Amino acid sequence: MELTQNKTSATFIALLARYDEFLKQYIYPLELKAVYGSFKASLPELQALREIAKKEGLFAPHLSKEEGGLGLSLQEFGRISEILGKSPIGHYVFNCQAPDIGNMELMHQFASKELKEKYLKPLQKGEIRSCFAMTEPENAGSNPVHLSTTAVKVGDEYIINGHKWFTSSADGAAFTIVMAITDPENSNPYQRASMILVPLDNPGFKLVRNIPIMGDIGEDYMSHGEVKFINCRVPASNLIGQEGQGFALAQERLGPGRIHHCMRWIGICERAIELMCRRALTRMLDPGKPLASQQTIQNWIAESVASVKASRLMVLATAQKIDEEGAKAAKEDISTIKFFVSDVLMNTLDRAIQVHGGLGITDDTLLSFWYRHERGARIYDGPDEVHKSVLAKRILKQFAGS
Amino acid sequence: MELTQNKTSATFIALLARYDEFLKQYIYPLELKAVYGSFKASLPELQALREIAKKEGLFAPHLSKEEGGLGLSLQEFGRISEILGKSPIGHYVFNCQAPDIGNMELMHQFASKELKEKYLKPLQKGEIRSCFAMTEPENAGSNPVHLSTTAVKVGDEYIINGHKWFTSSADGAAFTIVMAITDPENSNPYQRASMILVPLDNPGFKLVRNIPIMGDIGEDYMSHGEVKFINCRVPASNLIGQEGQGFALAQERLGPGRIHHCMRWIGICERAIELMCRRALTRMLDPGKPLASQQTIQNWIAESVASVKASRLMVLATAQKIDEEGAKAAKEDISTIKFFVSDVLMNTLDRAIQVHGGLGITDDTLLSFWYRHERGARIYDGPDEVHKSVLAKRILKQFAGS
Amino acid sequence: MELTQNKTSATFIALLARYDEFLKQYIYPLELKAVYGSFKASLPELQALREIAKKEGLFAPHLSKEEGGLGLSLQEFGRISEILGKSPIGHYVFNCQAPDIGNMELMHQFASKELKEKYLKPLQKGEIRSCFAMTEPENAGSNPVHLSTTAVKVGDEYIINGHKWFTSSADGAAFTIVMAITDPENSNPYQRASMILVPLDNPGFKLVRNIPIMGDIGEDYMSHGEVKFINCRVPASNLIGQEGQGFALAQERLGPGRIHHCMRWIGICERAIELMCRRALTRMLDPGKPLASQQTIQNWIAESVASVKASRLMVLATAQKIDEEGAKAAKEDISTIKFFVSDVLMNTLDRAIQVHGGLGITDDTLLSFWYRHERGARIYDGPDEVHKSVLAKRILKQFAGS
Amino acid sequence: MELTQNKTSATFIALLARYDEFLKQYIYPLELKAVYGSFKASLPELQALREIAKKEGLFAPHLSKEEGGLGLSLQEFGRISEILGKSPIGHYVFNCQAPDIGNMELMHQFASKELKEKYLKPLQKGEIRSCFAMTEPENAGSNPVHLSTTAVKVGDEYIINGHKWFTSSADGAAFTIVMAITDPENSNPYQRASMILVPLDNPGFKLVRNIPIMGDIGEDYMSHGEVKFINCRVPASNLIGQEGQGFALAQERLGPGRIHHCMRWIGICERAIELMCRRALTRMLDPGKPLASQQTIQNWIAESVASVKASRLMVLATAQKIDEEGAKAAKEDISTIKFFVSDVLMNTLDRAIQVHGGLGITDDTLLSFWYRHERGARIYDGPDEVHKSVLAKRILKQFAGS
Repeated sequence: MELTQNKTSATFIALLARYDEFLKQYIYPLELKAVYGSFKASLPELQALREIAKKEGLFAPHLSKEEGGLGLSLQEFGRISEILGKSPIGHYVFNCQAPDIGNMELMHQFASKELKEKYLKPLQKGEIRSCFAMTEPENAGSNPVHLSTTAVKVGDEYIINGHKWFTSSADGAAFTIVMAITDPENSNPYQRASMILVPLDNPGFKLVRNIPIMGDIGEDYMSHGEVKFINCRVPASNLIGQEGQGFALAQERLGPGRIHHCMRWIGICERAIELMCRRALTRMLDPGKPLASQQTIQNWIAESVASVKASRLMVLATAQKIDEEGAKAAKEDISTIKFFVSDVLMNTLDRAIQVHGGLGITDDTLLSFWYRHERGARIYDGPDEVHKSVLAKRILKQFAGS
Repeated sequence: MELTQNKTSATFIALLARYDEFLKQYIYPLELKAVYGSFKASLPELQALREIAKKEGLFAPHLSKEEGGLGLSLQEFGRISEILGKSPIGHYVFNCQAPDIGNMELMHQFASKELKEKYLKPLQKGEIRSCFAMTEPENAGSNPVHLSTTAVKVGDEYIINGHKWFTSSADGAAFTIVMAITDPENSNPYQRASMILVPLDNPGFKLVRNIPIMGDIGEDYMSHGEVKFINCRVPASNLIGQEGQGFALAQERLGPGRIHHCMRWIGICERAIELMCRRALTRMLDPGKPLASQQTIQNWIAESVASVKASRLMVLATAQKIDEEGAKAAKEDISTIKFFVSDVLMNTLDRAIQVHGGLGITDDTLLSFWYRHERGARIYDGPDEVHKSVLAKRILKQFAGS
Repeated sequence: MELTQNKTSATFIALLARYDEFLKQYIYPLELKAVYGSFKASLPELQALREIAKKEGLFAPHLSKEEGGLGLSLQEFGRISEILGKSPIGHYVFNCQAPDIGNMELMHQFASKELKEKYLKPLQKGEIRSCFAMTEPENAGSNPVHLSTTAVKVGDEYIINGHKWFTSSADGAAFTIVMAITDPENSNPYQRASMILVPLDNPGFKLVRNIPIMGDIGEDYMSHGEVKFINCRVPASNLIGQEGQGFALAQERLGPGRIHHCMRWIGICERAIELMCRRALTRMLDPGKPLASQQTIQNWIAESVASVKASRLMVLATAQKIDEEGAKAAKEDISTIKFFVSDVLMNTLDRAIQVHGGLGITDDTLLSFWYRHERGARIYDGPDEVHKSVLAKRILKQFAGS
Repeated sequence: MELTQNKTSATFIALLARYDEFLKQYIYPLELKAVYGSFKASLPELQALREIAKKEGLFAPHLSKEEGGLGLSLQEFGRISEILGKSPIGHYVFNCQAPDIGNMELMHQFASKELKEKYLKPLQKGEIRSCFAMTEPENAGSNPVHLSTTAVKVGDEYIINGHKWFTSSADGAAFTIVMAITDPENSNPYQRASMILVPLDNPGFKLVRNIPIMGDIGEDYMSHGEVKFINCRVPASNLIGQEGQGFALAQERLGPGRIHHCMRWIGICERAIELMCRRALTRMLDPGKPLASQQTIQNWIAESVASVKASRLMVLATAQKIDEEGAKAAKEDISTIKFFVSDVLMNTLDRAIQVHGGLGITDDTLLSFWYRHERGARIYDGPDEVHKSVLAKRILKQFAGS
């Protein structure tokens, strides 16, 4: 395969510019208040922006045209996602935020007509929110076969019991999709779990707490729930896909999901570089001698720009591969971008903070928010260390016996 | 000079063990609540611990025996400081916390008898708290000659006007020492500023806000103030030392101050390594296969232990040099430990978080607190980049012309 | 612009496979002897391979079809260059080795018909070799306006005087192109120098020595000359391009030149990863427990693979930009790949050596050759530090005044 | 234990100054020629320096006074070793070079009276040289229980068969000490091997080749032999220590040996920093603007100085611990300095090369020699990765079950 840099159609370039403009006009003025103040209190303003986005035809760009979106390839949406990533509320305004986008993708492919009608449609329209309950506090996420949550089929119901955390955005969500063991005796540990949709008004569901993460307890969409399922009964028809398909579906969900995260991270880096440059140009060491004149600062800018550029090319190439050959064919590539880009992200944020000096550790800029809330990037969706081993083992296999 | 590892006297070793024991018995059980909950609400409990410390003869170890302390060398206090650093409230309980300890050292040497009587004594006893107002939002801290705050002598008063931030612990403090320009025309920019004591009940003093730092607005001792001096009048006798000595005193204050910080950072590292090891031993990837079996985790532990050990030796050697030859003779050493240890600190915390996985980014362990609140270590007291240049220039001088 | 990974035509893919096959069949068996033994002694064998390459239509792929090459874009040649880079003699066999390839590109564009006939043609056919004399021992290469070599026009001759080094491959070359100051008074320092072709049988040219580089004095093509021009007279018609164009031409020469180097470095990385993987799979720590089972080794493989992939995408994207918009438009990109890829190269080699243990530092593998001879990659064509500053300043400019 | 920096006695300080002076006067003028030219050809000059060293009472400082040395502690010798390390021929001139020093230490403690008389005495006087044959090409050095070389006792002789490499300085040595399996069935793999002295004029000993290392085939002392033992018969009385003690003795030998290496590495760093600073001060980017004015260069100097200082403190503290408590008690410390200092060494050399630009990769300075010949530092005496695991496992043990 050959990599080329195609001229994008003028139409698409113009579209990107519109998103960029939207951010500057509507989102940047609101973002600090929304992430450092009460998110709930900002909901009306955010809703107003969603209405504008709808009017301008920019809402939910990831959806097919029939579903009200723009009908983009994964690669094209990645380009938009990068722009939205420049603000911590960018994706939210356009209703393509995790974990909802992942649930939309999953349900689009695998949910029954009924579930789609009842849950997916309002989710796509931004009328409700959702969450995804997989990680368990008692089991290492790096080896997902170890799950304690169970769903036992009794009659035409599943009875679910279990303890989950990092059920992001559970607070205020309408439903969750939960990963639970349905076939504990299956000799293939990857076929023991299933995904089941649970409405959160179910009496068997309990939001234990919003977990305080890096100083933020959060609320509503901006939160990470610890939840319990206690004899939680749902109709058996709430199953997503087939019984035992849980891990297979999770893989399907994670492939594009990592593209989304990576492009968002690249957007964050872009904004951090912008903040870093502006600060370096305006902060004076002596009259007429800005911080930008210091070679160390120049090194940081150059190294950030270079590694972000490398990241973008790798993620877009991976998106293209998924578009053309499917997520399975791109497994190595997906592992690679996961650990490569998360590292670039944290390094870039760290440099941007250092350039800001004391201001960098205050909540007066976005950097504090990202430094804290993106530290998880190296952990969630499989810690980087696991992805490195996975990649290395696949590479090594190519040379074994040769 | 030769470096040796002397057996410490049995007495001193026993003393260290008592501090360690105190932390485990009294402080560890309280620390999470004090730093993640309301600090103010914890004050009664903290006060109770201070009383125990007094009774046990462990309170204010940094003070001379006459002042009620233990009469230790800087090096000896460093050893205690390392132990106290294992908890974010360790120094506070023993009343040797920054910025108070720096103010005590400064006033002990340079304050008038009257100021000592009125302010230093109750400070030493832990009856009041203090703060230090030097950094200004409008001027780069890395070049301290640029200060906008002024103190104009009118009659037997100074009239102070200025804007400061990172006036840590201003909230609830009884007084601040402020750095202000008293002689703006002095041809030597290092002789333009003076240090003046300002009681905070002065109507010309205004606590604008507790600056939200990395997600925490903080309160009381655990806060970082943005403050204003507006025609703030204080008696001319509130001057510390001589007029124009501001920078000289700041240097005096910073020398031991950096030892204190560095030893505290090393204590944090010790605790982080302990947390990392315990987590690695108990988190199972598979039954019987703990995280600790992973070579990457082992690398992190080994690299952390090695660099912390190197840090400790360097800081103690520097403390010894200050003890024997004074802070000026140790200027290079002080710059060296500043940037070396702050880097070790942040790397160690980062590894400890990664070992904890999702738990590492929650506020369920101390790591989140330190990851956020110690990020400033690479910035305050001169950004690391400045110290590197300072050190390099002094080294280069040795080879110039030879 | 959008980056896509186009399917390359089946024809081109087949072509790449032929180069790969050629290396394995003909070049790998010869390489260790050629680089660790006497290069001169290997010349007959190398010549024989060149004949095979000609017969197979693979020789001089970088040239246009009219000149006997394959008529490739810079990007396409880059793909071939990566493969050739897997062996230290790969480019040589196909006559697309530096510095000759750079001289061919330069003369193709800017040399007079007569010079082309007399020097370029035999160079393209591999009948003669050439070199390039720019760097001077007395002047920092990072600021190329400082040159001491002069060329004074007297009648229809230039009289050249100067001292150069890193005139690579001067030993045995037929001619050099020398950079010399022809207009020392020009107010624009970038218009003071010119490029002049000097045949090396000229009595005014002296090869002072082959500089021993990292333990190798080298010989013939594999050498780096220190040379002198002493009243060296050449016809004025030996000028390349116009008088005063020296720096402009050097920039033209360097743009594609850096693509060539970077793709070659990537080829080296590919081979180093291959060596690292094979060693890891076959070296046993205990019976049945290969080095490859160690997580640290896996980390190194994964990190190398990821960064090499990122490098390839960036270099090919830059090549495409040069193909489409010219070298000037790609200035930032060219600086970026220079420092990014040289770093990846040295890290990958270093890891591969460490995986080999004691064997890694012997001359029994290629790693020792590359570790030593590619250390210059971070220095030549502008040290990485200069490129970082250049890039940062251009990025900063985008934000100035905005 | 407390670490203090004792004033060294005036006598010892004066002694250090004499070594330093000796290097500048006698050794620096000879070193480039000795390491880049023929070492053999330099032997007469080196011998002359040894005579001067003897006359000045500086020869063989590591030996006890009875044996003609200075009777120093390990820590004191470490201080001298650092100074000698500034030149690649420093230790050789004073006859305290590896591997001879290790053999002297070993034989001093464990050899029979007869072996001492016949071999140790002339070795201590510098009349003969020796080597040490442990590493085998077919077995990973990181797990030393895997040895293929055997010594079978037949009558009063051992018959030794085996293949070794990295038998450093075998070329021209009078004897080797070889590690061979004498009790292959012993259930404790660490009690299977023994150390036996083999004179190299034995017909069963074969120097296969001097292994070319990083471009140098080397000769005489400056060489690394690949050797074979083919039915090599030596008297059973050539055994060092007891049968089966091989590994125990190797550990004894390695403890102080690592101190020697580390202090030598620190000496190399000192010299590299000196070269780096002098180059930075004299290399002009523009008239009056030396390389030293660049902040990146300043960073490198500062980081090198800091890490070298940390290294020195750690190694001397470890030497002190060995002096006071023996090598076994210092096992963790020895592992720590091994990987910490080798890393500092390579980073410092790398920065020094980069500061030198093109000159840095030539053999016109010492940097090329060290960059190549010290790359092994991260590999020999146990690769750094093994030491990290060893250290981590011991640290983890402290927390297990607690």
